[in-house]
Order: sequence, then structure tokens, then C-alpha cells
Amino acid sequence: MEQTTDRINLNPSTLLAPVPVVLVSCCGRSGEIARANLITLAWAGVVCSEPPMVSISIRKSRFSHRQISETGEFVVNLVNEKLLWATDFCGVKSGRDIDKFAACQLTPVEAPGMELAPALAESPLSMSCKVRQVIELGSHDCFLAEVVAVTASSALMDAENKLRLDRTRLVAYNHGDYVAMGRLLGFYGFSVASPDVLARRMPRKPVQAERPTTPGGRSRKRKPAANKKTNDKGRL
Amino acid sequence: MEQTTDRINLNPSTLLAPVPVVLVSCCGRSGEIARANLITLAWAGVVCSEPPMVSISIRKSRFSHRQISETGEFVVNLVNEKLLWATDFCGVKSGRDIDKFAACQLTPVEAPGMELAPALAESPLSMSCKVRQVIELGSHDCFLAEVVAVTASSALMDAENKLRLDRTRLVAYNHGDYVAMGRLLGFYGFSVASPDVLARRMPRKPVQAERPTTPGGRSRKRKPAANKKTNDKGRL
Repeated sequence: MEQTTDRINLNPSTLLAPVPVVLVSCCGRSGEIARANLITLAWAGVVCSEPPMVSISIRKSRFSHRQISETGEFVVNLVNEKLLWATDFCGVKSGRDIDKFAACQLTPVEAPGMELAPALAESPLSMSCKVRQVIELGSHDCFLAEVVAVTASSALMDAENKLRLDRTRLVAYNHGDYVAMGRLLGFYGFSVASPDVLARRMPRKPVQAERPTTPGGRSRKRKPAANKKTNDKGRL
Repeated sequence: MEQTTDRINLNPSTLLAPVPVVLVSCCGRSGEIARANLITLAWAGVVCSEPPMVSISIRKSRFSHRQISETGEFVVNLVNEKLLWATDFCGVKSGRDIDKFAACQLTPVEAPGMELAPALAESPLSMSCKVRQVIELGSHDCFLAEVVAVTASSALMDAENKLRLDRTRLVAYNHGDYVAMGRLLGFYGFSVASPDVLARRMPRKPVQAERPTTPGGRSRKRKPAANKKTNDKGRL
């Protein structure tokens, strides 16, 4: 194996990027935790396709940790640029001290499949989640949860009733920064797609700069794989 | 709780977005799996800060699943636009059939802390990961792993030896699409930052459009929280 000299060693840390940033809504059942709350999380990811499952990780000390631990349910609300101020604010304040919905002038609405946890009306898309497993890892507990229902703004649906997440301005979290989504670079399967699929799906050519020009099993001159079926759903 | 009429119900699925897209490198120990391999994953996330841990989810049928299950180690390589063609290609081909490093003209290099798994020389940043737990969830197995070492391109470090991930063009995955990173919208804590911190850290004003203008616990006229410490590391 080769060795490189232009790389440096960094301390081990959570440098995965970009990651999502979401507003998770929840509500406890009893006592002081029995009220709707929001928590901002970037430690969230997809963990399974069938059943559809996501993970969220929360510090034990958080108010929302108590709420979600008690009820076993929460709603993951996607964040667009309109929600960014509230998203940051909900990430630095505690639901123990303030009503975050009121403080940010946001609206809790009924979430399908949830007993208590509300969805966030202002979010472009909300996933109702039921906790299946909690794993203690150290600073954070990891909640593995099944997505049992999804609601979305009707403005995200196109004429063919397909979900178009590109119609809202989602935000990514990148090592302490909130970053806007930029231009479309390609779609899942573009590297093996036929010219007609490429022409239909890409407003301009996908990134090809680093496509190998000498064959390592393939070359630019190969026939278009006209029968190649790619998975439009983008399941990786 | 209010009800909304402009929202529609969708089938439950994994609609978290944006999510990372990464090239995971691995290598088996014995027989046909004893060779360096790459797999493209979007089902990846941060799950813990201390110790630093990430999750990746892989279908049982994948060649890389056998390799990582055998050795308990893998390397998560971040993906920038230069790597996008290879990233898509490695997501639709199997390491059972081809040598993906050769096919994409990519370079495996030694990864600190790993016995067999290589890092990807062309990646801006690579995290060496040791599997701590495997959780069977259905279509995918979820590997919870500790980040034990990190290497990065020296071009990502600024004059103060701070990591600047904004110096490379990372790619997000958004419901089947690969999307470029756009403009900087804010930083963790911007909603409560003092004017001098805002001036220092933001080339232009962070998104403020949706900041509440009537007080729900706060107003525009409050004094700047000059002593407010925000966490520059962006730990949420």
C-alpha cells in the first residue's frame, strides 16, 4: 500500500460532514415534562430502509431525553432556511427554561401515529418515529426508531404527485456551520446511466471531471447501458 | 393542538435529508474477501461525541458487509465533488465483481489505527473506525463504531492549524440527488451571538428573516449577550 506525505493526523473526533440538522419535537406524559418541546440535532442519520428507521443521539442531561425516554416517540422535522434562526436558537436553549414553540413563534400540530409528540407545522416534512431501541454510548444515548408516518407540505409535491425535496431550501450542518444546498451535481446511478436518462434528469451535465479516461474496466467509448435499470429511489 | 390542511400524508420512508454521502473503505482478512474495497453509503451518521462514534448501515448481501464483519474495522472517507463520479460508480457496482480502486483509479493508503482497512488517498478527510456493536434492524445491519484516528489533506488546515472543511467541496445526498454545498448561512450559536462575534465569523449577515420580531421571551432590542459562550466546536 502506498503512503502519502500530504496528509496530516488529527485528533479522533466526529468529523463526518455534511450531516443533517433537524428540529425534533417531543412531549412528555407527566409532571413538568408534560409539554411540547423542540430540540435541535445534527447527530441524526438513516439506519435502515425496511423498516424505515432513523437514529438520533441525545445527551442524557437534555430535557428532551427525559421526554422521549418516557414516551418512546418523537417527530423529526426537516429544517429549511426559513427555520434556521429557530433551529439555532432551539439548539442553544433548554426546554426546561422556556417554551421553545412560543419563543420562536412556531406551531405544534398533530402528528399521525403519535400519541403525544407534535409535528412542527412550519417544517417542510415531518417523520413520526417510534423508538425501538436505546443504546448508551457515552456522552450520548442513541435512539433507534422506526418511521411510522410522514407528513409534508403540499407545496413539495409535483404534478405527478412525486416528492420534490429540492423545492424547499434544506440546510446542512458542516463542522459547526449551517450551509445552504447548492447546485444539483448528479443523481444516484448517473455514472452508469444511459444518455437519454442523463438528458432527462440533469439540467446540465453531471460532474465528470474525475471520471477515469483510461479504462480500469471501463472507458468513455463503451456502449450506453440502455437497459441498465438504476434505482430512482436512491436507496444506497 | 392545531391541525393543518396544507399538509399531505406520505408513506413512511427514510426521508431524512440532507444526509452525508461517503466512501467507506475496508479489506477482509481471508480468502476472496482479502482485498481492498470501497462502498458508497448515505446511511451514515454521528451517534456519540465522547467517545467519537459514527454509525454506518449496510445490507447483509453486500461484499463489504462480509469484510467489515470479519475484521471489525473500516474507514469513512468524506466525498468532495472531484470524487463524485467514483462515489456514484462505487454505489452501483459490487466489489465482488471488480476492483473498485483500480476501476476508479483511486489510491488505497495506510490508515492509522487500522490493521487492514486502507484509507482513500484522494479523500479530503478519512476517519479510521473500529466496530463496537452491530445491530440487525431488517434490510440493513447498523455498525456502531468508534473513530480511533483521523487523517486529512494538509490543504484543509489554515494558518492557525484549524481544520477548514469549507476549503473542499463536500457533497450531500438529498433524496436520490447529489447536491453541492452552497453558501454559509450561519454558525452554531449565531442566534445568541454578540455583534462582534457575528462580525468576525460571518462574511455576511446570517439568515434572520424568521427571527421573531415580537417578544416570545426575547426581542430585537435586548442587550448583546457579550459574555455568552457559544461552543465553537459545534457539538449539538
